[in-house]
Amino acid sequence: MITHYECIPCAINGILNLFNQNLIDIKHKDKIMRELLKYYSELDFSNSPLFVNKTIHKMVREISCNPDPYKCLKDKYNEIALKLYPEYKQIVETDENRLSKALRLAIAGNIIDFGPGHTIDINKSIENIFNSKLSIDHSEALFKEIKKAKNIFYIVDNTGEIVFDRIFLETINHPNITVAVKSSPILNDATMEDARLVGLNKLATIINNGDNAPGTLLNSVSDEFTNAFNSADLIISKGQGNYEGLNNCKDKNIFFLLVAKCDIIAKDLGVKNGGFIVK
Amino acid sequence: MITHYECIPCAINGILNLFNQNLIDIKHKDKIMRELLKYYSELDFSNSPLFVNKTIHKMVREISCNPDPYKCLKDKYNEIALKLYPEYKQIVETDENRLSKALRLAIAGNIIDFGPGHTIDINKSIENIFNSKLSIDHSEALFKEIKKAKNIFYIVDNTGEIVFDRIFLETINHPNITVAVKSSPILNDATMEDARLVGLNKLATIINNGDNAPGTLLNSVSDEFTNAFNSADLIISKGQGNYEGLNNCKDKNIFFLLVAKCDIIAKDLGVKNGGFIVK
Repeated sequence: MITHYECIPCAINGILNLFNQNLIDIKHKDKIMRELLKYYSELDFSNSPLFVNKTIHKMVREISCNPDPYKCLKDKYNEIALKLYPEYKQIVETDENRLSKALRLAIAGNIIDFGPGHTIDINKSIENIFNSKLSIDHSEALFKEIKKAKNIFYIVDNTGEIVFDRIFLETINHPNITVAVKSSPILNDATMEDARLVGLNKLATIINNGDNAPGTLLNSVSDEFTNAFNSADLIISKGQGNYEGLNNCKDKNIFFLLVAKCDIIAKDLGVKNGGFIVK
Repeated sequence: MITHYECIPCAINGILNLFNQNLIDIKHKDKIMRELLKYYSELDFSNSPLFVNKTIHKMVREISCNPDPYKCLKDKYNEIALKLYPEYKQIVETDENRLSKALRLAIAGNIIDFGPGHTIDINKSIENIFNSKLSIDHSEALFKEIKKAKNIFYIVDNTGEIVFDRIFLETINHPNITVAVKSSPILNDATMEDARLVGLNKLATIINNGDNAPGTLLNSVSDEFTNAFNSADLIISKGQGNYEGLNNCKDKNIFFLLVAKCDIIAKDLGVKNGGFIVK
């Protein structure tokens, strides 16, 4: 996937969102904005949005002298989601079709993404997806693959969302699951610390992906990630960033669970922006 | 008014809108986008959005070797509005409160602005404003001033919209009206050619403002404009761009008719984005 001109205002709005939440010291704002604009003015647009956003956020961290500007938001979203855990765990447990409900919950969790600057409302999102038709729905095929798989590789996306991934993984109840997280902070993406905080380590082996792009860049990940990816019977990939990086791996048994959050991805998927996807 | 960071994605989206409507030859797009980004990366943000947008669109015209990239859209909107003229003329003529109806029509016309890239629907906008409460409503004061005024200076904004300005000016039916237009093309703003096309010259003296900022920059306008502005008993200013340039003229008898189309202007006016204003 190449970078489109439309990615530029989206990236700027993401940075403005960071500014407007006072997550960047005011004295660094001007330099960050100017460097961001200069970077795009000289960009080779054949680079992927994942590479571009990785570069931009490295620059933000360096200029702001802050290794994790999203830290307090990430903590807040993990905390909010953990508070919601008992309620939604029970909703799933008491549902006629537990697996389907847990799957929808895992997709709903993907709306929790404060990177691109969207307004969010967790409960409303969950209610919405519980009652909505999926724009692409290969869930029955996914459930068959889960039953057959000897090992499952689950690539998570964001903090907060991973609490709902936990409920989904508990419902799958498979003995051999590996979960991949980012090796260091980028946007609100989940790291090892977050995975442990929400208890994913009790259900699965957690590995670092060796990178901190806001998705999976296969040419940048660790050998450990590559080995787990290549040896998995079934790969479940969460979110837009991982879809961007992996949607061309046609020889792999990958299912993508995501909410299409931008026009470019929605067009690529052939759905409307905001569509819920199991593909 | 200074330029805000929020103006940057808005300006980029305006240019993308121009690109996506194929109003710029594909071979010029890359240079325009890079120059735009470079310009903002080096900008003195104390400059007004009017000055900045004037500069940006000068650059767009130069790179694209096109003195009026919006020409076909402007013609289209004049044509659409002229077709709507008989219907809305009759609606105003048969209304109990003709002046109030014509005023609302003139404000509704201000939604026809394809500069910032908003979706528009003329009939829906008009219906909406006919049925909406104005966010700021000094219309009774305006009507009193119209009755008292010996001469009225009316500063128009966009093509298409000027057809509805015509109905408002016909309803005012004042013997001494001067209308100011831009001296040369900028965005979809009305010029002398447009004013004559829709027949404003039959109701008023039309003058060029001596500039082509997308609003009124008092330090850039012609002496003719300045004289008409200073000698008017009543000034009626249409749209955001003229509001941006004139809202600090506290010693003048100015009424602003506009739709607040961005968060910065809405905040300045103390209303919600999308609010209808007679101030």
